[in-house]
Amino acid sequence: MEFVSPIDALFLLAESREHPMHVGGLMLFEPPEDAGPDYVRRTHERILREASFHPTFRKRPATWLGAPQIGWTQESDIELGYHVRRAALPRPGGQQQLLDLASRLHSTLLDRHRPLWEMHVIEGFGDGRFALYTKMHHALIDGVSGQRLMRRTMTEDATARDLLVPWNLPRTHPRNTDEPSGSTFGSAARNLLSAAGSVPALARTARDALLRQQLTMPFSAPRTMFNVPIGGARRVVVRSWPLERVKQVAKSTGSTVNDVVLAMSAGALRGFLREREALPDKPMIAMVPVSLRDEDDNEPGGNKICAILCNLATDLADPFARLEAIKDSMHRNKEVYRALSNTQAMALSALTLSPFAMSLLPALNSVANPAFNIVISNVSGAREPLYWNGARLDAGYPMSIPLDGQAANITLTTNGANLDFGIVGCRRSVPHLDRILIHLDNALTELEESH
Amino acid sequence: MEFVSPIDALFLLAESREHPMHVGGLMLFEPPEDAGPDYVRRTHERILREASFHPTFRKRPATWLGAPQIGWTQESDIELGYHVRRAALPRPGGQQQLLDLASRLHSTLLDRHRPLWEMHVIEGFGDGRFALYTKMHHALIDGVSGQRLMRRTMTEDATARDLLVPWNLPRTHPRNTDEPSGSTFGSAARNLLSAAGSVPALARTARDALLRQQLTMPFSAPRTMFNVPIGGARRVVVRSWPLERVKQVAKSTGSTVNDVVLAMSAGALRGFLREREALPDKPMIAMVPVSLRDEDDNEPGGNKICAILCNLATDLADPFARLEAIKDSMHRNKEVYRALSNTQAMALSALTLSPFAMSLLPALNSVANPAFNIVISNVSGAREPLYWNGARLDAGYPMSIPLDGQAANITLTTNGANLDFGIVGCRRSVPHLDRILIHLDNALTELEESH
Repeated sequence: MEFVSPIDALFLLAESREHPMHVGGLMLFEPPEDAGPDYVRRTHERILREASFHPTFRKRPATWLGAPQIGWTQESDIELGYHVRRAALPRPGGQQQLLDLASRLHSTLLDRHRPLWEMHVIEGFGDGRFALYTKMHHALIDGVSGQRLMRRTMTEDATARDLLVPWNLPRTHPRNTDEPSGSTFGSAARNLLSAAGSVPALARTARDALLRQQLTMPFSAPRTMFNVPIGGARRVVVRSWPLERVKQVAKSTGSTVNDVVLAMSAGALRGFLREREALPDKPMIAMVPVSLRDEDDNEPGGNKICAILCNLATDLADPFARLEAIKDSMHRNKEVYRALSNTQAMALSALTLSPFAMSLLPALNSVANPAFNIVISNVSGAREPLYWNGARLDAGYPMSIPLDGQAANITLTTNGANLDFGIVGCRRSVPHLDRILIHLDNALTELEESH
Repeated sequence: MEFVSPIDALFLLAESREHPMHVGGLMLFEPPEDAGPDYVRRTHERILREASFHPTFRKRPATWLGAPQIGWTQESDIELGYHVRRAALPRPGGQQQLLDLASRLHSTLLDRHRPLWEMHVIEGFGDGRFALYTKMHHALIDGVSGQRLMRRTMTEDATARDLLVPWNLPRTHPRNTDEPSGSTFGSAARNLLSAAGSVPALARTARDALLRQQLTMPFSAPRTMFNVPIGGARRVVVRSWPLERVKQVAKSTGSTVNDVVLAMSAGALRGFLREREALPDKPMIAMVPVSLRDEDDNEPGGNKICAILCNLATDLADPFARLEAIKDSMHRNKEVYRALSNTQAMALSALTLSPFAMSLLPALNSVANPAFNIVISNVSGAREPLYWNGARLDAGYPMSIPLDGQAANITLTTNGANLDFGIVGCRRSVPHLDRILIHLDNALTELEESH
């Protein structure tokens, strides 16, 4: 039996029926032209033949005399047909039916008696497409690493017919951080624990660093419907926008793509909350994971991710004024970040990669006094169109983990010419989450028209 | 806030991710001749308009300041679209795809933040049929009452087009035991608690009564693969047999239909375990709920159900000798039952209606020394064909609750000219459960040929 690291153990212990701790992804594919009516079924059959497993995909919580223990066992007898299943959409097989199914799949707990992952191959689309929904426990992998892992199953070559699966990828460079066993958060956190001494010390360090950023804010974060205890059921909604539209706004306003994405999100949150007569007077605050790599190239640590608190200026009616406030806030807090000690910066970095680490920090995640209202995370994606076994990836939507006090989150990624948004909310606390898609689109249109 | 009764509280407290405590049912329907391609979708839309709820369907566990309490709340804001969902089978939409879906639906926990029930309307059958899968928490209703409730939504009139739903049935006679709030087990147990004084006293009484039956057995129950701790995932398998085939065997052997059903089950268990080289030398023991009403009409208590221990004689190779041993065992233990005190008999009656009550009794349910190996329950059903909104009920399969030490169970019911078997097992402890269907069929054929 391998002992579970302190961080992974916390992920396992924190999970309850109200707080499933898995990350997910929903990928939509256009089958190749020569695909017959049984293409998806045959693809599923081919997947089931991939019965060789990377150790991460064999890990399950150990039991001893029937009681669960904080240890990992390597499962020797994996029932692949349990982990990889087929599903179908009811008629007419459109967006609504897909999201109903994805919401249900994202709501259920993984079985702890088996390795902590599932893949669902979804057919029955009215337009002939198909989808993959994947989920993995956060104790195995973080969301960013999970996205990378799925991308490694794909290729830019439309003619390739290798069927790669995440549990049986060819080994690459031994120190490649894409390897599932070396998840970005896991290794960062493990390094940090030796620097900080313990999980509570790490939590204190991260909180102090975040509080220093809060000083640049006009107000502390208001309470909203997003900052409440949550139930077990989830609603996921997804939509893609052309990257070019966002780039045009960025160009005409002298902003970055990420600034415009934040302004879209801010406008959408404002519209969504106004519609429900629940917009707070004070501006909402987002936590935004940002890579400082380009600007910080000679720093050690490689791909340095930092947790920036951003004033979303949801109190301002003018979309352009909102965008300016967001740019200003991001700029100031990047400066604050640069002034932090290395340990503080690393503690915050680890935080942003882990929804769960946030739930450890009462000061960050207090329902009474949230330090921020929502996490908006732009995960780096692919610039070129990708193919999986000849099927073109139309969209890949990341799905993160809501928590008590963080009842919804927005995660997006680049996929070729599109930005793919995946928004996950507690189905009870945040009703009608699908409306946020309309408000996102309105917010982008407003920004296009404001110049 | 209504306080939860001690019995219902135990159902709620005992539930964990490994032990979901809901009962289910899978009903297959043949749509009426005038049904178009969107019949199922329109039926779902009609169901969603039935937004009036019997109090049982509004009950959810209360929370107070975010912490779950042992109390019931009446939910005022029911999101019916959460409780009643559409699902579809992948191609080709056959038995395998249906059972894969039903297994997954029966494995997941109900959301405690909402009333504890779900209904899934399933389409995508290759043969044009559709299905309903329903689940309700055992704290609301027991399996027998759940079956009756669903039957009350149906009619023998093929031309009727009233769409009745279980949460909004017309009220009948106020003392009708079919009312969901007066579930058979619930009221029996409540009466008993006043007789026995407490749950542990009730448990002791039931155990003593069961031990007295054990004295008539040739051996105590052996350990089998069915008597082990269980995991969270379930496998359900179902199949129907013509009642006439069973009746013919009963007639030619001077047995009851229930004797033949037990002999089918015994033959199937023997075949299934032999195939896995896991047949114990000693005969397996079943717990069989039996109604003594007809034979006991002048007893008070009305529909008296008793828990008979039955020697399945799985050690005997000859199917006819097995049937004789089963008949003998059933006869002897009915006699023992009649000699029990009224309180003992009632305690055992309550037991048989509740998978959970069994889990309270270490002597009944010990993994090391099981008092019996499996529950085989023949629930009374309909003699005439039934219709729901013009769709003919082809089959209605009950689905019960596996427990630690009782990793599978067999429940069956009469539906017109058929006997419908629903078998639920722990997916991990009892692999290849679908094989038991073949062995059930073989066992019936053997009994037909042995005369």
